[in-house]
Amino acid sequence: MINKRMQALGRERSVIRELFEYGLKRKAQLGEDKVHDFSLGNPSVPAPSELSAELSRLIDECDPVALHGYTSAQGASDVREAIADHIKREHGFPARSDRIYMTAGAAAALTSALTAVVCEGDEVILLTPYFPEYRVFIERCGAKVVEVETDESFCPDVTAIEAAITERTAAIIINSPNNPSGAVYGEDRIRALADVLKSGEERFARPIYLIADEPYRELVYDGADVPYVPSYYNDTIVCYSFSKSLSIPGERIGYAMVSPRAHDDGAVYEAICGAGRALGFVCAPSLMQRAIPALLGVTADLETYDRNRRMLYDELTSYGFYAVKPSGAFYLFLRSPSGDGIELSERAKEHELLLVPSDSFGCPGYVRISYCVKTEQIKRALPAFKRLAESYGLGGRDE
Amino acid sequence: MINKRMQALGRERSVIRELFEYGLKRKAQLGEDKVHDFSLGNPSVPAPSELSAELSRLIDECDPVALHGYTSAQGASDVREAIADHIKREHGFPARSDRIYMTAGAAAALTSALTAVVCEGDEVILLTPYFPEYRVFIERCGAKVVEVETDESFCPDVTAIEAAITERTAAIIINSPNNPSGAVYGEDRIRALADVLKSGEERFARPIYLIADEPYRELVYDGADVPYVPSYYNDTIVCYSFSKSLSIPGERIGYAMVSPRAHDDGAVYEAICGAGRALGFVCAPSLMQRAIPALLGVTADLETYDRNRRMLYDELTSYGFYAVKPSGAFYLFLRSPSGDGIELSERAKEHELLLVPSDSFGCPGYVRISYCVKTEQIKRALPAFKRLAESYGLGGRDE
Repeated sequence: MINKRMQALGRERSVIRELFEYGLKRKAQLGEDKVHDFSLGNPSVPAPSELSAELSRLIDECDPVALHGYTSAQGASDVREAIADHIKREHGFPARSDRIYMTAGAAAALTSALTAVVCEGDEVILLTPYFPEYRVFIERCGAKVVEVETDESFCPDVTAIEAAITERTAAIIINSPNNPSGAVYGEDRIRALADVLKSGEERFARPIYLIADEPYRELVYDGADVPYVPSYYNDTIVCYSFSKSLSIPGERIGYAMVSPRAHDDGAVYEAICGAGRALGFVCAPSLMQRAIPALLGVTADLETYDRNRRMLYDELTSYGFYAVKPSGAFYLFLRSPSGDGIELSERAKEHELLLVPSDSFGCPGYVRISYCVKTEQIKRALPAFKRLAESYGLGGRDE
Repeated sequence: MINKRMQALGRERSVIRELFEYGLKRKAQLGEDKVHDFSLGNPSVPAPSELSAELSRLIDECDPVALHGYTSAQGASDVREAIADHIKREHGFPARSDRIYMTAGAAAALTSALTAVVCEGDEVILLTPYFPEYRVFIERCGAKVVEVETDESFCPDVTAIEAAITERTAAIIINSPNNPSGAVYGEDRIRALADVLKSGEERFARPIYLIADEPYRELVYDGADVPYVPSYYNDTIVCYSFSKSLSIPGERIGYAMVSPRAHDDGAVYEAICGAGRALGFVCAPSLMQRAIPALLGVTADLETYDRNRRMLYDELTSYGFYAVKPSGAFYLFLRSPSGDGIELSERAKEHELLLVPSDSFGCPGYVRISYCVKTEQIKRALPAFKRLAESYGLGGRDE
């Protein structure tokens, strides 16, 4: 009597993983350079040298009993204080260390936050396209996903969100900069979103938590600004990860922050601590926790992503493909010329291009191209993209 | 509409944590040396030098993109292979790397395993006394805890276990060496336990999973042997942690191993992977994963614990207290002379001794004394223990 839902989750390889494994096989057959894998969102730039230096310093200088010992379940207090100070400095927001809960990455922050504020039978709003694991996390809580489409630039359609709010709406997850669309939500849109959520709260006399999943906060281009969501909406929980900014996704270090302005903020924070406990997190990895204070404000070299983004967007649109130019994260969301993302993904394979169809993101008709790869790989892949465009009879721009 | 169960879990400071915080306050008032804190199970000996050496080597020599990048969700395959080989060598058991799932410590292994094989309405057997978090993990699955008393040496009473098995029994958790009793289950008892579980499986035509929680496996004394449970019972899931053997509890590294002999072992493994995914684990911390192969078979200095154990047991029994001599872990489970563990814990406080009452372990009438402390602390505390014994009018042995 195995839990069949869990077995299904473990068995179904995600579409992304499936494609990646296919790529490994093709590379073994054809050679590494002949297969152009754009499937995974795995940072391709090394962690900043400051990370290695700080880890080495901690290992050399600290008492190992303290360094590798349990921290409190919420995280070491000096680490939480350093993060709160950083938020105050960076965003002018009155963060408090006793509202910050250190986690094993953003996924742990999300499952802890959802488990804390979502009850069986509740609804959680997701904006399409969205990271597929959100659905897994929400459904494990016994809650229902309510999908709401975004506008033509993949930004929140606040009128549609307002219409989707019901008496069962417990939360909405937003993810800006966005995986998979690359959209960054501007200040006006966040303000408008805050307004409809507030009016929804009043209408149904219950809090609606805005869960802001922000692992890509630092990955923005052309000077795009990422508004600090808690400054606009009180019932906000920020889920943050250092995975992308520091290129350390395997280390699982991040945090959940409850806005001190949230309704019953202390109770929400307690519930997150309780959820982390019930899910088995104990504490976030201690060595990585200790390294964080020295790395706040430091990032890996993000220039590479920007260079990749510009090259990919400029070239692909010059071949006749259509995409909204991404402003953040490291994904290009390409519209399928046939209107069918799976068809495009399959046809791309014939050109040894591995592109993730968008259906599992709740938004059919596109493919996601992860450009967190070496720039060389993009250059090598361009002729294949060109042939792919030609196979659809797309007219390239005259040059 | 916060999840009230989660809030309660986050708010209720565990009795252990409560006592620890009280101790910090008293130490601030009276001085560090005047308060004898035996509340926490936090390893007091440093991690072995091999750990620092291996971490430094990895940081200096490895490509940071690979070192800190995502591993597969199950864990890096070479790490899992090294662990499988180690199990084969140490226990002569045919472990398989594709049945090992790397986790963020034993707690994550337990929540993933329970979520995988326990469904709503199921029952899970716990042997009293037990680690209080087991109850939290089981109840989060919507399952019911069935407590079964152990015998006078805190070993499984297989007749009582047999009587407790029903058609709803999905699993039993055992923990040997045991927290809080220090008991180590011998081979005969494991064999007898396997027999009643097998007959329970036949009786109700369903698998009953034996979840062996083994973070203290290496912490045994007087040459005690810890039988390798999967060698005796097929439907076993081992939950292991490197927290205690390597003194790195904050780093959260361990694994769940499904016996390849288990009924439907592949499906159980898939369900564990699915559960880990749904709970938000993504992958076990990558740097620590990479360090493990070089540390298999290495332990921190465990001699200190043995010295502490002998001193504490010999002295306390000489004052007239009663305890079963612990054979493993780092806890002494002391019987309250009044029959009331809370009363003993409160009276101990008057002597600045911090001892955890056993009620939350499902076994009232005792206190747990964690002797994972500096030997000096035990020496300093002995006069206080003596006065405590005298306050009960206990007759010390003539010397």
